[in-house]
Amino acid sequence: MLRGLSRAGLGSIGSDEALISAAAQYGFQTVDIDARGLIERNGVEGARELLKNGGVSIGSIGLSVEWRGSEEVFREGLAKLADDAKAAAALGCTSCCTYVLPATDYKAAHFAVIATRRLRTCAQILGAYGISLGLEFVGPHHLRTVWANPFLWTMEETLDWIAAIGEPNVGLLFDAYHWYTNGHTIADIEALKPEQIVHVHINDAPDVPAEEARDNGRLYPGEGVIDLAGFLAALNRIGYKGSVTQEILTAEPPTGSPEELLARSKAGYDKVYTAAGLA
Amino acid sequence: MLRGLSRAGLGSIGSDEALISAAAQYGFQTVDIDARGLIERNGVEGARELLKNGGVSIGSIGLSVEWRGSEEVFREGLAKLADDAKAAAALGCTSCCTYVLPATDYKAAHFAVIATRRLRTCAQILGAYGISLGLEFVGPHHLRTVWANPFLWTMEETLDWIAAIGEPNVGLLFDAYHWYTNGHTIADIEALKPEQIVHVHINDAPDVPAEEARDNGRLYPGEGVIDLAGFLAALNRIGYKGSVTQEILTAEPPTGSPEELLARSKAGYDKVYTAAGLA
Amino acid sequence: MLRGLSRAGLGSIGSDEALISAAAQYGFQTVDIDARGLIERNGVEGARELLKNGGVSIGSIGLSVEWRGSEEVFREGLAKLADDAKAAAALGCTSCCTYVLPATDYKAAHFAVIATRRLRTCAQILGAYGISLGLEFVGPHHLRTVWANPFLWTMEETLDWIAAIGEPNVGLLFDAYHWYTNGHTIADIEALKPEQIVHVHINDAPDVPAEEARDNGRLYPGEGVIDLAGFLAALNRIGYKGSVTQEILTAEPPTGSPEELLARSKAGYDKVYTAAGLA
Amino acid sequence: MLRGLSRAGLGSIGSDEALISAAAQYGFQTVDIDARGLIERNGVEGARELLKNGGVSIGSIGLSVEWRGSEEVFREGLAKLADDAKAAAALGCTSCCTYVLPATDYKAAHFAVIATRRLRTCAQILGAYGISLGLEFVGPHHLRTVWANPFLWTMEETLDWIAAIGEPNVGLLFDAYHWYTNGHTIADIEALKPEQIVHVHINDAPDVPAEEARDNGRLYPGEGVIDLAGFLAALNRIGYKGSVTQEILTAEPPTGSPEELLARSKAGYDKVYTAAGLA
Repeated sequence: MLRGLSRAGLGSIGSDEALISAAAQYGFQTVDIDARGLIERNGVEGARELLKNGGVSIGSIGLSVEWRGSEEVFREGLAKLADDAKAAAALGCTSCCTYVLPATDYKAAHFAVIATRRLRTCAQILGAYGISLGLEFVGPHHLRTVWANPFLWTMEETLDWIAAIGEPNVGLLFDAYHWYTNGHTIADIEALKPEQIVHVHINDAPDVPAEEARDNGRLYPGEGVIDLAGFLAALNRIGYKGSVTQEILTAEPPTGSPEELLARSKAGYDKVYTAAGLA
Repeated sequence: MLRGLSRAGLGSIGSDEALISAAAQYGFQTVDIDARGLIERNGVEGARELLKNGGVSIGSIGLSVEWRGSEEVFREGLAKLADDAKAAAALGCTSCCTYVLPATDYKAAHFAVIATRRLRTCAQILGAYGISLGLEFVGPHHLRTVWANPFLWTMEETLDWIAAIGEPNVGLLFDAYHWYTNGHTIADIEALKPEQIVHVHINDAPDVPAEEARDNGRLYPGEGVIDLAGFLAALNRIGYKGSVTQEILTAEPPTGSPEELLARSKAGYDKVYTAAGLA
Repeated sequence: MLRGLSRAGLGSIGSDEALISAAAQYGFQTVDIDARGLIERNGVEGARELLKNGGVSIGSIGLSVEWRGSEEVFREGLAKLADDAKAAAALGCTSCCTYVLPATDYKAAHFAVIATRRLRTCAQILGAYGISLGLEFVGPHHLRTVWANPFLWTMEETLDWIAAIGEPNVGLLFDAYHWYTNGHTIADIEALKPEQIVHVHINDAPDVPAEEARDNGRLYPGEGVIDLAGFLAALNRIGYKGSVTQEILTAEPPTGSPEELLARSKAGYDKVYTAAGLA
Repeated sequence: MLRGLSRAGLGSIGSDEALISAAAQYGFQTVDIDARGLIERNGVEGARELLKNGGVSIGSIGLSVEWRGSEEVFREGLAKLADDAKAAAALGCTSCCTYVLPATDYKAAHFAVIATRRLRTCAQILGAYGISLGLEFVGPHHLRTVWANPFLWTMEETLDWIAAIGEPNVGLLFDAYHWYTNGHTIADIEALKPEQIVHVHINDAPDVPAEEARDNGRLYPGEGVIDLAGFLAALNRIGYKGSVTQEILTAEPPTGSPEELLARSKAGYDKVYTAAGLA
């Protein structure tokens, strides 16, 4: 399983080019970046060169299409998706992810069927370029009541949704924080096939009851109470071989220079990978 | 548009064979019956003969698969669907319908995605035999709170659901009572293409506010306050050519002999068809 | 059924703006143009204004994606399709068409499965914008041996292909010349549902055996031997209400000024529409 | 990877019950049998007991639907598929396979699109019961000219077909004999993801040029010239964990008692598994 970096948790790390360089320096193997932007600034060959020189590949791009609002906004964004996919494919990236909020102000069933259709179309376009779509279920309990109606938040619900979407290239973005706050288990991971997982996030939780952990109260891997060793070992056991990308969402920007934060991230990965028997 | 009979509203009409005979006698052109049962009792040739002799065709069969409960029950029922479809196809029937309750005790979004997958599978099996699946949205307001969570009940929501199901052979079972109790308009009908309509029901409503009309408080066509002339004329205008089938759900069985009820139905059809300029 | 113009058969008619103006002047109701180009030159509002002032709508745009060659070329073109679709939808157009050559230098079965996937993806993107994809089977016999292996050319084969593609928004571009050269019949048209037809072309054939009629040897409607009256009357009978667009492919550019050619087209339409009882 | 037995190569082994017992005795872990038949004769509980007592599971059932002939025959067979799938699922089997002949008397492209639709429907029904559909490409060259028109026979073509079918639960039945006779390589295996493989067959080829090896001239694993060690090691390397089932098709029934043939099969497996580093 590849160690991956996103921007979340690195403070003012700067450009995606800087992130690539930092990942290379601190022993990370993948980066979650904007593939299209990288190509626009550097050309396809330049972008490939940057990744190659850093010895890193792209873990995932983000889904730029806004599928949660009006049909007009959806169609507007959709027109750009094939370009995103083409750029990602040109750089060897095979993953594109989006998150699913656990509640909605729309009537829940109606939103579910509209979003099913929209995400299917996104998956179909991505699939034409060999890219999978990862859906991230979101566990923190406090978010379940921010909007009027409960939506989907568990792994099981999300897998049922993926079956409803019905495209071969849709799977989970599986985040340790959401696994933990949902009260999911090691057995839940072991019930997965590796091809059901498009991307993985890790980060840690403070020592409060799981149902009180805040979405933007995340800690660096190995600094909290989540059983990341068990989480990683189970993913490895089922045969998952992709990125495990840090995503540290915090209420305040983390203190410390990017270098300090990178060193801290690296130490966290060393710790939890070792504990999982993966180092 | 063909005049159709279902059992609902005819009292103790007896067997499907009796219904075919009654339809023939009172000038109806289609019957909603159990095609498989008819074949089991009469053989394919015998069943065809009965329909031919009566000058009637089958308007629709009902979806026998229970898609609202457990996965086990769903799979159990699914195993019989191809036989139903084969029987219906053998008798020239191209429509199979089910209704959608406007609320559910399941978490609404989760039920929506599970039901999307299940109805898609039903549609795929039916489609292999040239049969379309009609979904009936259900308008009466009192049903919206019988179960814990609101589900789908408007025409627009149902069309959005059909798009999420994503099969070419899924459309509406369009019932005048649900159109009326939902407060839908003539313009809503005119916005439809005829191929979006798999089957049509008519019946009438008592002179109470639409939001107070009970699902099992229906009247014979022409005996209530629904603008059935407008409803039928609009369906005809958009090019709908299929069955318009009586379905009179009542709290108490209707009084009168089947013959009296059939004559009453015929009179109702004569009245509303004439008012719609269709007679 | 709407009278439609394409550029084919009008000589040097000039820009799409000129085509719109010509259509308006000679009593045509639709034009087959490049919606995206029209918007790029005039803005969305300007393009709408042009169409509105001419009293015409767009019959169909052409599918710009090259689905017959390498995967790389396909992906490259696909990235532009959503923009085409967005533009067409902005101008109220709901149809996009491509033609199917009756032979291929690829191994036929392999090409069939690759093209099935590619056209499905095109249909999915178009469908997100409310646009249908029309596939034009191509009848002239001489084309069947221009490439090494026979592909698909009859209406029945094309309908079977549409079923294999499996999207609700795919249908036929139904061209009178291909209907005629294939030896199809009035009964073949009557077997269609109107929603299976995305677009219609008319033109006429010289008085040679149908199997000798050349693809680029077409005549103006009413000037040849095709039973266009029967063709149009049958389309009208089944409820087709869309465009019937002239497409006159000729080996040499037609002689005469655009004005003369437009007048000739109008006369041809008057003749065959009258003969079909549609005038 | 599990050692599996089919009936092919075991002479008059007798009933599926006998095959289960033989597999258990000779160290095989899976059997390819008729799940529905086993249940009909023994009940669900009895069938489970037989498998459990033998310590074996079902490798795959065969697809009983005839998808290569008329639509009527297809529909007839389809009506039984859900029952097959239900039976297989009840016994924990997740695989159903069919083979693809490399030529056809039908027009190849037309057959391709019809078969695409039919196999999609089969996959959809199987998928409702958690079962995957494996397509076996067939390599022996002599079969390519038994019927009039070339169809699909390479791994690449079959993967392209699977993409055209477009269901998540369709993959390869990957047979060493077809891999060998097609001239496919270890690199071709390494390019696969394990989830693309539904089932595996092994057997061996005589020492003749690969293009002369006959479909019914197969040898026991380890007794011929196929690099089965490389084949198995590559499958293991990519993470395939399913059945590897013997299928020895021969012109004449093999000589020797079932016990001798079983011992011979076991010895062959021991040899090639050891050579692949899997013993």
